[in-house]
Amino acid sequence: MTWRATVLTLYPAMFPGPLGLSLAGRAREEGRWALDTVQIRDFATDKHRTVDDTPAGGGAGMVLRADVVAAALDSVADTRPVLAMTPRGAPLTQGRVRALAGGEGVTILCGRFEGFDERLFEGRAIEQVSIGDYILSGGEMGALVLLDACIRLLPGVMGAASSGEDESFETGLLEYPHYTRPQIWEGRTIPEVLRSGDHAKIAAWRKSMAEEQTRLRRPDLWERHEGARVQSPSGARRQTKDE
Amino acid sequence: MTWRATVLTLYPAMFPGPLGLSLAGRAREEGRWALDTVQIRDFATDKHRTVDDTPAGGGAGMVLRADVVAAALDSVADTRPVLAMTPRGAPLTQGRVRALAGGEGVTILCGRFEGFDERLFEGRAIEQVSIGDYILSGGEMGALVLLDACIRLLPGVMGAASSGEDESFETGLLEYPHYTRPQIWEGRTIPEVLRSGDHAKIAAWRKSMAEEQTRLRRPDLWERHEGARVQSPSGARRQTKDE
Repeated sequence: MTWRATVLTLYPAMFPGPLGLSLAGRAREEGRWALDTVQIRDFATDKHRTVDDTPAGGGAGMVLRADVVAAALDSVADTRPVLAMTPRGAPLTQGRVRALAGGEGVTILCGRFEGFDERLFEGRAIEQVSIGDYILSGGEMGALVLLDACIRLLPGVMGAASSGEDESFETGLLEYPHYTRPQIWEGRTIPEVLRSGDHAKIAAWRKSMAEEQTRLRRPDLWERHEGARVQSPSGARRQTKDE
Repeated sequence: MTWRATVLTLYPAMFPGPLGLSLAGRAREEGRWALDTVQIRDFATDKHRTVDDTPAGGGAGMVLRADVVAAALDSVADTRPVLAMTPRGAPLTQGRVRALAGGEGVTILCGRFEGFDERLFEGRAIEQVSIGDYILSGGEMGALVLLDACIRLLPGVMGAASSGEDESFETGLLEYPHYTRPQIWEGRTIPEVLRSGDHAKIAAWRKSMAEEQTRLRRPDLWERHEGARVQSPSGARRQTKDE
């Protein structure tokens, strides 16, 4: 079954955009995923096709109307999860990406301006998701990021050789550093251990580098990682995965 | 002076992509920012135009060569900061976005495959940045996100009315919920206080909602926010900003 993405937006021309090229583009041509867009403006009810209005209580910007957005959403209602991209949402994680990629697809709602009328989230089942702690001009960039992250995990897209299981976040750690030819570049050599041919030693070095870099660069991730080890029953399950 | 972005990538056709439309597209037409791309492959030195090779020590995927990427980077060397988009980088924050938007522009290096040869980061001054804790098919999506976040803050792009100062993260909190017409939607009314016309009461309600939602949805942000209040000299500076 093809993984299906439906994007509700005021800028359908932004899609597929970068997803039309490279890995995601090829996968789409091969029918591994499908994309359609819904123009939210088509669900406006006045002759000016108004989708937004001034914020109740005053303030800058415009707010997307609950009635118009809900009508657009209701037009695509099916069993797929509905996500709204918003800085107020839950931070996107690789775990959530993997779960979404394992499902039948997603419906993504892209905001603009000051965001959505809050009642929309009371009246409809919508998961609010944030791709990071910064502000974008709209939800479209977030939708592209979310789709790209999901698509590369779909069966057949990356190929068996790079299942992505070693990558950053999949183990709860940042990935270890990589090296390739040339052997010497500007006087810098590839670490000796990687040229040893000793697979156990290489695996141990990579693990210790992943741990060290996570500790130094992302103490927040490291604390969560260590917390998970301590909390799991005698730490056994987590250790099996890491070692 | 025009804010300038240079993107080094194996997929120049992904740019400007979504940045060619809407807010960013208009701003580019008005000359508020400029974009150029550099094809990393143009700096390969063999007849096959090879940019990558197998990882030293074995493993899946391919690693971008330090010599080829450095040559591409050296071709655009100027005084702008150089950022590489990678999941191993420092998480992007609104503060970093604001600083970059206030400068002369950025040079962005987009990785693919398993990433860059680590020696690149020893041999060149490169800031490694991550847009979030998930894996993308390449750095291009991250570059689009970073540029979108910066461009909306450039002078004249958003207009004076929406300076963005109230938004999520600018105060260290998530933004308060928004409402707009219709007054009643599916039996749900706009909160009474927002219709009171009492600006002080509205401001107090919004502040308390922002605090409550941050505490509930993002305990990590809330802790940092409270930590900053306690740590600043007698809490005065931070409190002035928040209150």
